[in-house]
Amino acid sequence: MDTITQIAFNARQAANVLQTVDTAQKSVALKLIKQKLASAKDDILKANKIDKDLALQQVEAGKLSSSLYKRLDLEGPGKFDIMLEGISDIDKLEDPAGKVQAATRLDNGLELYRVSCPVGVLLVIFEARPEVVVNIAALAIKSGNAAILKGGKESFHTCSAISTAIRQALDDAAKSSSENEDEKTIIPADAVQIVESRQDIDGLLKQDKYIDLVIPRGSNSLVKYIQWNTRIPVLGHADGLCSTYVAASAKLALAQKVVVDAKTTYPAACNSTETLLVHDSHLASGFFAALAKTLIDHGVTLKCDPPSLASLQDTVAKDHADKVLASTEEDYDTEFLELTLAVKTVSSVEQAMEHINEHGSKHTDAILTESEREAKQFMAGVDAAGVYWNASTRFADGFRYGFGAEVGVSTNKTHARGPVGLEGLVIYKYQLHGNGHASGDYGAEEGKRAYLHERIHVQEEETLSDISHKRQRID
Amino acid sequence: MDTITQIAFNARQAANVLQTVDTAQKSVALKLIKQKLASAKDDILKANKIDKDLALQQVEAGKLSSSLYKRLDLEGPGKFDIMLEGISDIDKLEDPAGKVQAATRLDNGLELYRVSCPVGVLLVIFEARPEVVVNIAALAIKSGNAAILKGGKESFHTCSAISTAIRQALDDAAKSSSENEDEKTIIPADAVQIVESRQDIDGLLKQDKYIDLVIPRGSNSLVKYIQWNTRIPVLGHADGLCSTYVAASAKLALAQKVVVDAKTTYPAACNSTETLLVHDSHLASGFFAALAKTLIDHGVTLKCDPPSLASLQDTVAKDHADKVLASTEEDYDTEFLELTLAVKTVSSVEQAMEHINEHGSKHTDAILTESEREAKQFMAGVDAAGVYWNASTRFADGFRYGFGAEVGVSTNKTHARGPVGLEGLVIYKYQLHGNGHASGDYGAEEGKRAYLHERIHVQEEETLSDISHKRQRID
Repeated sequence: MDTITQIAFNARQAANVLQTVDTAQKSVALKLIKQKLASAKDDILKANKIDKDLALQQVEAGKLSSSLYKRLDLEGPGKFDIMLEGISDIDKLEDPAGKVQAATRLDNGLELYRVSCPVGVLLVIFEARPEVVVNIAALAIKSGNAAILKGGKESFHTCSAISTAIRQALDDAAKSSSENEDEKTIIPADAVQIVESRQDIDGLLKQDKYIDLVIPRGSNSLVKYIQWNTRIPVLGHADGLCSTYVAASAKLALAQKVVVDAKTTYPAACNSTETLLVHDSHLASGFFAALAKTLIDHGVTLKCDPPSLASLQDTVAKDHADKVLASTEEDYDTEFLELTLAVKTVSSVEQAMEHINEHGSKHTDAILTESEREAKQFMAGVDAAGVYWNASTRFADGFRYGFGAEVGVSTNKTHARGPVGLEGLVIYKYQLHGNGHASGDYGAEEGKRAYLHERIHVQEEETLSDISHKRQRID
Repeated sequence: MDTITQIAFNARQAANVLQTVDTAQKSVALKLIKQKLASAKDDILKANKIDKDLALQQVEAGKLSSSLYKRLDLEGPGKFDIMLEGISDIDKLEDPAGKVQAATRLDNGLELYRVSCPVGVLLVIFEARPEVVVNIAALAIKSGNAAILKGGKESFHTCSAISTAIRQALDDAAKSSSENEDEKTIIPADAVQIVESRQDIDGLLKQDKYIDLVIPRGSNSLVKYIQWNTRIPVLGHADGLCSTYVAASAKLALAQKVVVDAKTTYPAACNSTETLLVHDSHLASGFFAALAKTLIDHGVTLKCDPPSLASLQDTVAKDHADKVLASTEEDYDTEFLELTLAVKTVSSVEQAMEHINEHGSKHTDAILTESEREAKQFMAGVDAAGVYWNASTRFADGFRYGFGAEVGVSTNKTHARGPVGLEGLVIYKYQLHGNGHASGDYGAEEGKRAYLHERIHVQEEETLSDISHKRQRID
């Protein structure tokens, strides 16, 4: 077995153990990891210093951006402690595995349970920030998955030091002869592995026998490369081309507030609005000119189609010619990631939907309207992970949605869509509990039994042991 | 746009309409399709005759199996009516789209709803049986998806005649000037399209911009070919290598009943048991010999590892030497699809789990045991879509699970796993309803708002309009 296959195989073996581990055991592991990282702080910061020194040379040579250098740094005030607190935050979240999602009595004594369970082995690829190792390791353990991690090469020493501490914590606990259950866990160290080079990634992308899900967190080109080079399902998004449609009945003050927020609060984010669709009634009325003026006052450059451009000629464009430009067709397929906004005029919600379904990236799209009927039409007809009514596209985020943790944002059409929390790291298995039941006994013929298919009522968030305890009490 | 891209594009356009269609509209469409197929019965049977005549020549030339010929036939007693009844059965199932799966109040007046919605465009590839066209078209419409279908070339004339009738029904209804809502639907004819050749499939497998999910229903080689030749997610299974483990505490009569059912009721099915794992305590006790004898009496050939083989030498093998053979390593990775069963001796549930996790296909695996603790260990530790306790692996089937319809059986680790019903054809979108909410108003800083993240309680199976009606009553 070559090194890469061995890494994938070891992760699978660890995943096989992890799927049998309960919430309490996971919590023990997370607490031990936090302790070990705290006590390894000096070693980790030493490793971080090596990465930073190397990066600084690159910055000075003009080969690395200073913002990337900043993201490497773990020594900033409170940064290390915030990283450790993140483990406790994840520990406190509800365990996504082991939940009974559905239950059916197929016949007396033959009961089917659909129970959530970990996906298995995750390959997570990210760029500079080394604290992502801690975050992903904690998310993986909490959800019962093994993780193979590859960080940016600039953070290699830091990531290695962090993963060494995490693995040591698991190793110590597994070998512990302690009688104290709080100091023991059966989770193998290979639950968290780290790889170094881009070649390792190419090798791992072929390990579809052992790896179940790839999660790339980073640039559009990183995500696209991975999507095109593996048969393993990929969770993530390459593009974030969000649109906001200002319908005929939209109120100006509301539109000004929401569009400014959607465009300007963090232009480089994937949930920022890149295209503004405007109902044509707003051109002559001065509504659009007022909205355009507010956007320009917030530093936005508008790239307008002919009707919207013409409508600004005698007003806003007079004083701000450099901020009001003509658009090209390409602008409507561009994720600007800066204070540039493409503007397109439409004459109906149908045209707005058609434009979005053709040019959008299925991430998040908003309609601003006072008409509930129109809002419902838009939210049903736009094919995107998020469809918003009178709200900024910038709300598309796992923390804002209340998930407590975000694995990534998915523009996929299957498995998990939109901001993905811990739930995106589990799937389900069907448990069938029988007592010698054979399929041949059932059928339409005489003497054969019929299936009952009775729904067994399950409380939300109930686990299988809750149910069997209850049953034992009833029996 | 070339022909194939046009087909995919048209399907996407149809899908955009379909996602806005409610349950009543889908029901109208399904009823109209059933009527039209009934009135087109003669044309369809004429087309079926052409296919059958061509196939018969192939059978006589020894190029086609007579069982495949039989599966082509739509004229058998009741066959056409059963096909039409299937549409009504699907019409009666619960609509999987439009369900509110979760709801959170992010702030006053800012509410997030996760609502199930169609996946979009399905490409379904199947082999001979022409009635699959009707089944898939009905499943697709019921779940709000557009479908592109490719049947076996032997059934081409029949499939074309069926799809012509289906499309005609949709077309007539869309053009209808009727005032009667029961005779109208806005579902476009391109919701159901059919393609003819293998080359078309190769072209369609590249249309990841327009096609969201590929569902191959057929041979292992068909499924593998598709899995290896597309970036579009594939729902299905290539292999069905199921195992049954007879643990130390298993009862003989129960094991005889369950294993005979799992192996012999339909050996060619993907949910039949292919490997029998036996606890070593059963070899000397005569338990295994008795179980082997029962299986042999049902026509099964056993391919045994050395310990299990040796244990039968003086007993069963004496009278049935041809039914008790030595196994090779390859046998444990083989889906026999006939009355052959590989036998492997293990000394613990851990060994059984290890064998299954390495050699199984993650389809369905069973343990026969009187120990609840051991059963739970097995069901947690085996990584498969179905993990069964004291029941036959043959129960792994959408109808037996009570789904009413089966889209396929998935051995994937994401999206949908095991037998897949209509639920596997939907995903979800997040609807956010605000009133001019901007993300910049929220944060930890002074003067900023905090998110409420209050759960909005939703009844199971509630739709968004149920909720908004309720809210209006409360307000």
